Amino acid sequence: MPADGAPLAVPTAEVLQRLADVVGPAHAIADRDVQQPYLVERRDKYLGRTPLVLRPGTVEEVSRILAIANAARVGVVPQGGNTGLVGGQVPFESGAEIVLSLSRIDRLREIDGPGLTMTVEAGMTLADVRTRADAVGCLFPLSLPSEGTCQIGGNLATNAGGAGVLAYGNARNLVLGLEVVLADGRVWNGLRALKKDNTGYDLRDLFIGSEGTLGVITAAVLKLFPRPERQATAMLGVGSLETALVVFGRLQARFGASLTAFEFIPAIALDFVTRHNVDARSPFVERHSWNLLVEISTTESDDASALEDALGTLVDSGEIKGAVVAHSLRQARDLWRLREGISDAQRPEGGSIKHDVSVPISSIPAFVARAAEIVERVAPGARPVPFGHFGDGNIHYNVSQPHGGDKAAFLELWEKLSHEIHGLVHEMGGSISAEHGIGRMKADDLVRFKSKVELDMMGAIKAALDPRGILNPGKVLK
Amino acid sequence: MPADGAPLAVPTAEVLQRLADVVGPAHAIADRDVQQPYLVERRDKYLGRTPLVLRPGTVEEVSRILAIANAARVGVVPQGGNTGLVGGQVPFESGAEIVLSLSRIDRLREIDGPGLTMTVEAGMTLADVRTRADAVGCLFPLSLPSEGTCQIGGNLATNAGGAGVLAYGNARNLVLGLEVVLADGRVWNGLRALKKDNTGYDLRDLFIGSEGTLGVITAAVLKLFPRPERQATAMLGVGSLETALVVFGRLQARFGASLTAFEFIPAIALDFVTRHNVDARSPFVERHSWNLLVEISTTESDDASALEDALGTLVDSGEIKGAVVAHSLRQARDLWRLREGISDAQRPEGGSIKHDVSVPISSIPAFVARAAEIVERVAPGARPVPFGHFGDGNIHYNVSQPHGGDKAAFLELWEKLSHEIHGLVHEMGGSISAEHGIGRMKADDLVRFKSKVELDMMGAIKAALDPRGILNPGKVLK
Repeated sequence: MPADGAPLAVPTAEVLQRLADVVGPAHAIADRDVQQPYLVERRDKYLGRTPLVLRPGTVEEVSRILAIANAARVGVVPQGGNTGLVGGQVPFESGAEIVLSLSRIDRLREIDGPGLTMTVEAGMTLADVRTRADAVGCLFPLSLPSEGTCQIGGNLATNAGGAGVLAYGNARNLVLGLEVVLADGRVWNGLRALKKDNTGYDLRDLFIGSEGTLGVITAAVLKLFPRPERQATAMLGVGSLETALVVFGRLQARFGASLTAFEFIPAIALDFVTRHNVDARSPFVERHSWNLLVEISTTESDDASALEDALGTLVDSGEIKGAVVAHSLRQARDLWRLREGISDAQRPEGGSIKHDVSVPISSIPAFVARAAEIVERVAPGARPVPFGHFGDGNIHYNVSQPHGGDKAAFLELWEKLSHEIHGLVHEMGGSISAEHGIGRMKADDLVRFKSKVELDMMGAIKAALDPRGILNPGKVLK
Repeated sequence: MPADGAPLAVPTAEVLQRLADVVGPAHAIADRDVQQPYLVERRDKYLGRTPLVLRPGTVEEVSRILAIANAARVGVVPQGGNTGLVGGQVPFESGAEIVLSLSRIDRLREIDGPGLTMTVEAGMTLADVRTRADAVGCLFPLSLPSEGTCQIGGNLATNAGGAGVLAYGNARNLVLGLEVVLADGRVWNGLRALKKDNTGYDLRDLFIGSEGTLGVITAAVLKLFPRPERQATAMLGVGSLETALVVFGRLQARFGASLTAFEFIPAIALDFVTRHNVDARSPFVERHSWNLLVEISTTESDDASALEDALGTLVDSGEIKGAVVAHSLRQARDLWRLREGISDAQRPEGGSIKHDVSVPISSIPAFVARAAEIVERVAPGARPVPFGHFGDGNIHYNVSQPHGGDKAAFLELWEKLSHEIHGLVHEMGGSISAEHGIGRMKADDLVRFKSKVELDMMGAIKAALDPRGILNPGKVLK
């Protein structure tokens, strides 16, 4: 509901024509079939409808589109690579909203290797951003399985996480400045390339993670990092998550900011990946209850040996049951593929109910144990596959259906199971969305778990920046 | 001006009595003499007036005070250690605002060494925060010359910077969660201890750096870091800032995130410090145009030798004219004292006009050269003393009066000189307040340099969160 209380309008043919005229016929898509890739959520959870997908080619076109939509009270759903996992980027089924694709606004505006910054437009894919940084000897550390498709604008709008968060923070930590088109079409040029700027309210971080509900990010100044010259990667086998916690503490004390990944994979996930991916093999002969993927990145030259030393100490003390250190880039990639292949490998195992949650790191073992009890009660025989970014407390708490059971019947339990899992997360001081955002999928949970004072503040800010409520209506805030 | 257009009220005796009753007579200060430490800005730039300084002892008392002030439309100036450098923490001369001191709300609520978090109340001094972290083997990296007096609540409200920003970021980067009392007295419990939480708008970072104009921070969950076991510190002498830039690039590529400080000191500043501080001596026999204070912090054991190796290479290549590596903690402290003593050592040299600015790092040499031309034109004979955090692009562009000239006449040039220096900063894509904030001193500059669209957004957010405009009125936004 917009701040001024009036409902959004179903766009008239005249308004739709004016919107289409901004981008020209080649980039205004009204045909249902051609629209399809913009309307299907990748997990098939949502299928939206829209009268028009607009693909502007310039920031100025975005500005004109929003000015028209704002005046006419037409809802606008900004979209990047359409890889979001909470339905934030697809329109509702009502068919009243237009989709604003940023994919054509994808230039590299500037790159400054020595100054460690680059200015990119929203539509550039994350993989391209990383490649461009690499070409000047730098690292842009945001890394996601979907990086070939997802776009940096969407990554920032959703404050994406990924595997590099442990050392570099999530997307919010990787941005110096933004360019944003506001609901009324005005353009905010906040493209600052400064490490320190203490002049006024932090508008940048307000837009980052607001999932397109406060403004449309069209460009950003990103932070780059000196490219680590050396990386050491290892897979460790341990008997319990309590031990994983001890190992994490030891490695963090030893390697500090150089510990760039500490991921965890349960035995069942390694089983799935090696069963369904012909190229994947477990690095261990034995089966370990938990497998830890550890990465050290530095500018030093002797890290593989430093990591081996540290792991040797842990093996000697009996904490690690097995350890495999990659001795080539290829071996390191193979270890990473085991981690990144988990979601895909769950598919042949039937339906999967997924959660993206976080708890304080020291609570991970207790959370995983208590969540398994909930699963057994709500969906007896279902198979928990908890994995993810141990070092950030971020658990992808996925649950595969019981072996040989009915997929549809299992997936019908999604809401019931999630309700209980999220309740446990909240009870343990955690977050019901560690990195995927709220979008459409978790908007009800937000109301359930946030205090009234916090929801009030969010509503007041939404009303202040988007008074007619046209930006991604019904997402994040219902 | 409050959002609803009505002016703030001069508090009546009845309202003042109700406010005083919240904290009791021992903590409601009406006596002018006793009030003095709360009203004098440390550089004597401002001397405020107030009917009442309130020293609440609990968050609940803060809540009741704000509820009363909001209902009665009384302006409230939150205050920590009163060390702010832009006048944000002192009331105006009108005497209509009350001062809300957080210094009695200063408990350590929780500390979790293995989990690397601590929860502290706003009134704890920064030095105490650091000491408490150290006691559990951790580092809280925010470090300021005023840390014995300044309070963590004020540090967060102003998004303080300091010498640790290069590796750890400024205050905003060091916070996981906040507790904030809103203008109407409601308490927002945002005390999350999660590294990843992507649920809704980033309210935390909106309050951080808002200088008490959006809410009163009463507690925070801070990030801790594994304490670096080894530090190597060195002072380097170079002939130009262009060379400093090259040296910075080399050391950053070599040491990455382990390069925890890269400060710059001009010859004149070293002269001042060694002249006026009997304990201070230059580490060099020769006088170098620029002196660079470099610190490497890691968990490795051989850093002094690694730094010596790297510096040796730079000396051999002729880039560094001199290099002194500290071989004891005491020698390292002596080097740091040279850097930290600059502001004090300027005092015996007469009046000083100060700027806290930043520019993209690669522009530092050009900025310093062009700023010197402005100084010579506006205040012939005045002596530029530019120093600060080179690695963040943050320059404390101080200017000492001409030798033997008239102090008052020189200080009268403050506004004129700052106007031009800030114009140059803006032209070079920089910030007119790198780390000190806006407060009262730079509120006019904010209007001068921010776009209308940005000021509009800030105004809309202020109106949304403080609709009656009682929180630190006239600061940041006029």
